[in-house]
Amino acid sequence: MNIHILTLFPEMFEGILQSSILKKAQEKNAVTINTINFRDFATNKHKTVDDYPYGGGNGMVLKPEPIFYAVESIPNYEKARIIMMTPQGIPYTQKKAEELKKEEHLIFLCGHYEGFDERIREHLVTDELSIGDYVLTGGELAAMVVVDSVVRLLPGVLGNQESAETDSFSSGLLEYPQYTRPEEFRTWKVPEVLLSGHHQKIEEWRKKESIKRTLQRRPDLIQAHQFDAKDQALIKTIKRELNHEN
Amino acid sequence: MNIHILTLFPEMFEGILQSSILKKAQEKNAVTINTINFRDFATNKHKTVDDYPYGGGNGMVLKPEPIFYAVESIPNYEKARIIMMTPQGIPYTQKKAEELKKEEHLIFLCGHYEGFDERIREHLVTDELSIGDYVLTGGELAAMVVVDSVVRLLPGVLGNQESAETDSFSSGLLEYPQYTRPEEFRTWKVPEVLLSGHHQKIEEWRKKESIKRTLQRRPDLIQAHQFDAKDQALIKTIKRELNHEN
Repeated sequence: MNIHILTLFPEMFEGILQSSILKKAQEKNAVTINTINFRDFATNKHKTVDDYPYGGGNGMVLKPEPIFYAVESIPNYEKARIIMMTPQGIPYTQKKAEELKKEEHLIFLCGHYEGFDERIREHLVTDELSIGDYVLTGGELAAMVVVDSVVRLLPGVLGNQESAETDSFSSGLLEYPQYTRPEEFRTWKVPEVLLSGHHQKIEEWRKKESIKRTLQRRPDLIQAHQFDAKDQALIKTIKRELNHEN
Repeated sequence: MNIHILTLFPEMFEGILQSSILKKAQEKNAVTINTINFRDFATNKHKTVDDYPYGGGNGMVLKPEPIFYAVESIPNYEKARIIMMTPQGIPYTQKKAEELKKEEHLIFLCGHYEGFDERIREHLVTDELSIGDYVLTGGELAAMVVVDSVVRLLPGVLGNQESAETDSFSSGLLEYPQYTRPEEFRTWKVPEVLLSGHHQKIEEWRKKESIKRTLQRRPDLIQAHQFDAKDQALIKTIKRELNHEN
């Protein structure tokens, strides 16, 4: 996979691209990641990338030329998904990560403080994505989030041990509580069932805790997922128990 | 505000903390931001921070000791919001950013690949946050997202020009399309109304486009927001127009 990131702040990416999984993935040649400062494609001598909005209002707007020209300088840009990071985008989810991991070329557009001229949305980008309902200073962190979540899914990038959490969002349930050594820390003990060695009981306990946590924190996930009849019955029982406790 | 970030990858934060708004905010003394490698607080000579999960299963689990001891080394940690970044957390939104900006001390816990021992959740943290329904390699990017969105709200950090977008999520609507020079780019023209100088018409056009975009992309935002009677009527009309187009 080839990733190009258009940004006015390439230095923001340095620490991230040279650590952990993104570093490993590049070393293993699973992905190449380049940053492009689209200010280099500005057409006037002051290297202006933004201007006042037509129709008035606060803030500045990113001009079309530098961004079109920067994208068009990228090899195979015609085959790329060209992704604008924006609060106006479609909410990004694990499902979209699974979709993007199949692409060969990804290009990310990051604005900073500012909006994009609408013609960039209309005539250049293929996807507009938002990583959540909060306002960031720029699209850089949002692009990093998408890049990290996609690259870790590429074949050979994660070891077995690291990939354990991959399915968090496909089961429709949040993870159950995890415990490790020591068995007791400041009087707080590991639940006995986990020390019992009784695999079926452990599995039942974990399933129940998963459902409990999801009902308490993210009932929307349960509503959105298709469960089999057995799980549906279990969810119903635990719901009743929780209501009883309150 | 004082921010401490516990992580096994402090180098991931370097580019981000030294660019743009987080750099400015630190220079203006609006915030201090420190990273702490909690491996330094491991208690054995191999500096182990994780171990196998009780009850079996894939993956490793972060041990309680290094994280408790690292947090307890931070001045005023008793007064801090101690925030765990985890896919099992409450979904992070702009409302939570507005809440966190009032705190004096924030501590972030970032896991990497791994889960946290449940006793950390139960007896140490005050908040568990998730930035979205996707799986990241670690909590580092998630912590950066929260830090960026909170710090930009601190008094004096953003200039007037930069703060224009702050209200994106309080109006209940996505932003309207923005245009800047040139008036024509590759035959694509700026809508005439924006060049008209007719302020009322411009405002009406923008409102309508905002509603249209939100109805098409994020109807959930409209459902969640309280609109006045005039806006409700407008939304209804535009909805009818859109249905007619399809």
